[in-house]
Amino acid sequence: MASKQQIKNLKFIFEPKSIALVGASPTPNKVSNVIFKSLTEGNFQGEFYPVNPKYQEITGIKCYPSISSIKKKIDCLMIATPAQTVPMILQECARLKIKGVVLVTAGFSEAGEEGTKLERQIKEICDENEIALIGPNCLGTLNPSTGADSIFLPMHKLERPKPGNIAFITQSGAVGSTIIDVAAYHGIGISKFISYGNATVLDEVDLLEYLEKDNKTKTIVVYIEGARRGREFFEAMKRINKKKPIIALKAGKFSRSAAAAKSHTGNIAGSYLAYNAAFRQAKVIEAEGLEDLFDFMKIFSQPLAKGKRVGIITNGGGMGVLTADAVDQMGLEFAEFSAEAKVKLKTILPSFGNVANPLDLIAEADGEKYEKGIEIMMDDPAIDALFIITLFQTPPMDERVLNVLIKASDDHRKPIACIMLGGAYTTNYQRYLDKYKVPSYNSPIAAVKAMKKFIEYSRFREPKR
Amino acid sequence: MASKQQIKNLKFIFEPKSIALVGASPTPNKVSNVIFKSLTEGNFQGEFYPVNPKYQEITGIKCYPSISSIKKKIDCLMIATPAQTVPMILQECARLKIKGVVLVTAGFSEAGEEGTKLERQIKEICDENEIALIGPNCLGTLNPSTGADSIFLPMHKLERPKPGNIAFITQSGAVGSTIIDVAAYHGIGISKFISYGNATVLDEVDLLEYLEKDNKTKTIVVYIEGARRGREFFEAMKRINKKKPIIALKAGKFSRSAAAAKSHTGNIAGSYLAYNAAFRQAKVIEAEGLEDLFDFMKIFSQPLAKGKRVGIITNGGGMGVLTADAVDQMGLEFAEFSAEAKVKLKTILPSFGNVANPLDLIAEADGEKYEKGIEIMMDDPAIDALFIITLFQTPPMDERVLNVLIKASDDHRKPIACIMLGGAYTTNYQRYLDKYKVPSYNSPIAAVKAMKKFIEYSRFREPKR
Repeated sequence: MASKQQIKNLKFIFEPKSIALVGASPTPNKVSNVIFKSLTEGNFQGEFYPVNPKYQEITGIKCYPSISSIKKKIDCLMIATPAQTVPMILQECARLKIKGVVLVTAGFSEAGEEGTKLERQIKEICDENEIALIGPNCLGTLNPSTGADSIFLPMHKLERPKPGNIAFITQSGAVGSTIIDVAAYHGIGISKFISYGNATVLDEVDLLEYLEKDNKTKTIVVYIEGARRGREFFEAMKRINKKKPIIALKAGKFSRSAAAAKSHTGNIAGSYLAYNAAFRQAKVIEAEGLEDLFDFMKIFSQPLAKGKRVGIITNGGGMGVLTADAVDQMGLEFAEFSAEAKVKLKTILPSFGNVANPLDLIAEADGEKYEKGIEIMMDDPAIDALFIITLFQTPPMDERVLNVLIKASDDHRKPIACIMLGGAYTTNYQRYLDKYKVPSYNSPIAAVKAMKKFIEYSRFREPKR
Repeated sequence: MASKQQIKNLKFIFEPKSIALVGASPTPNKVSNVIFKSLTEGNFQGEFYPVNPKYQEITGIKCYPSISSIKKKIDCLMIATPAQTVPMILQECARLKIKGVVLVTAGFSEAGEEGTKLERQIKEICDENEIALIGPNCLGTLNPSTGADSIFLPMHKLERPKPGNIAFITQSGAVGSTIIDVAAYHGIGISKFISYGNATVLDEVDLLEYLEKDNKTKTIVVYIEGARRGREFFEAMKRINKKKPIIALKAGKFSRSAAAAKSHTGNIAGSYLAYNAAFRQAKVIEAEGLEDLFDFMKIFSQPLAKGKRVGIITNGGGMGVLTADAVDQMGLEFAEFSAEAKVKLKTILPSFGNVANPLDLIAEADGEKYEKGIEIMMDDPAIDALFIITLFQTPPMDERVLNVLIKASDDHRKPIACIMLGGAYTTNYQRYLDKYKVPSYNSPIAAVKAMKKFIEYSRFREPKR
């Protein structure tokens, strides 16, 4: 638990005008070299001061023998030196009034008694001096819009996402690394990424409070094994989820996996039953696994759904059937198209086609048919949300369909979920749509599950609609 | 239902020495042009005779005015001409003793009374003359090892998989197209692909009987909305599943989706409860959705598991926890490593690391540590199956790890499932592993679910182990 001021001081970590890196190294693949490279080769625009008495310069950038020798204001200090050196460094921090620290080093309370003692010292120094410290034993932090990047995995192996409005807080560095890597690959923009490790100074609750007030953050994704302050954690989630959707993945659900969780973070994973009950009470959107996490976050930047009556449009019968199965199974409703919509839809179907939901445009459909069909369904007040299935494999489905899908996504009258599945050709189109934030899924079940979660959340946020 | 001889005559469709294409066209994107291109630009090595009285030649290949003008033995005829022309063409087939026909044309029983009458004529001609006919209203057939390819979707949009030992039979062309496209993309080799459409002559049961005896087929994947002959279908599955695993996806499970199924194939989708009960009785591996289909098929080419005690090895704690959660949830058992294995494993862990399951090699692990760890776990008789989690994002995880995973997959003492998740870098590695048939998953839940299905099937096949 940190003070209000410490929480505020997180701004020095995410929006630093200057960063110093203690232990900066020219040795490839060393943690402190990876961070050095991210800060010098990424998009960080502020002042950067590498610190290491062993070097005069690293790849042409002046290197300082100590923090105090920098003689400039330092907003954020990144530390990647061995555990036993850390208390001394933090005392220097305190003297120099550095208020933001990211400490990625491991070997603290998760490593035994000696480390526990060091960790206690760290906490004392930070609390006395209002230092906001993330870590230790963490992967680091990232703000893509400022380039403040302390993630110690190399950029060529772990892509950095572009700026956006989804924030991630993760108790596991490993899981965190996959989350940002996948987010970057799928064009999902993020506001803040925080792997908080042992949560010695700032814990889950503090971070949630920070994100609650962060204007750049619209959706919050949480990976948690065990919260330090259970009650406060749930209260914060309950309060914040009313304003910004929280998607949560609880790991260490069972006795065996909880033991595994304990061994890697030193944390006791909380009882899953308690978490599950609390999530349900707070209407937090629970993900069963990583796939849910990605599937859900894609859909939440859309306008809230007014109800649960869904329409399905497809150019492949079987894909429509599979989507209908998922809609049935998950308890969404099939929209009964309005009379007006039916008349209009009839005109885009082949002579023997019936206006039904799912609407099957059959394999002869092209971009124009999709455009008309989607427009009619967007206009129809009897439809609350739309599943758009596109088999790009058919000859008439050329690039023009992409613009139709982007238009549907930009329409912002109803939430949509696109479903497409295939090899290189289709995947290439899907990556293109990612760039325009069109929510697309490789499977009917995944799309319907995500939409159901979003419709439930919409009802929670606007019960009267 | 077809005769034994008709079923045998499928060899003329899959292994034809000569193919004639009726209605061959030079017009880009026309069905008959797509097939023309696949046969001339793909790897079909036999004789090919385009038939169309309108053309002397198409892109330099001699075109015949009629089938009878070819004057050579024709093993397989592919028909892409309008429905009403088909009975006449089949009568010519009968005269010329052509025994294999693929009819992709739509507009038969699914389109009304007139079509139903035509379809009845087709069946009569084929049955009288022992013609094996696939279709009508289907996507076509494919045998990658002979290049006999009647799929009417262009190769640049829908990749063709390489030869392998998984056969697909699908009632939906749309679903079929995604299946082969994805299979090709993920390097999954197939033996036969059959989209059988209206099943006028050869139905699901006939196709299963053919695949039962097909030496190239080791695993059978079925997408079904409603089988024509329910009882025979289940009996065939029950019998064949004892020799070759059958993975089945039933669509049209509920009233609404069943109605959608009826409208696109003219078939009444069978009661899902009956299918589900029959699958369980026959121990057929049921897929809940397309994602299951792909996840399951990857794992089934491995040696049967001797039991359900699993080991997990990871370089990222949180990913180990998530995998342990899935193992717990799905009722697999955590292996208790043997004393000998424990001693050996201790040597590859950092000083503060514990030998536990999941075994956490932490972020410093490289290919060598993985190689040793996997070797020890392969040797340990207390472990029946192995989950190998590799976060490629860490600096020491270089290309050498790929060879370690290929070696583990080739070891063939125990089934493995690899788990990896990330952006471009990791995806690139994953595609590389695909080429070597290393079963890999993007999610712990998907990997564990597939392994559980495989362990259940292993027990069914070898109950004494």
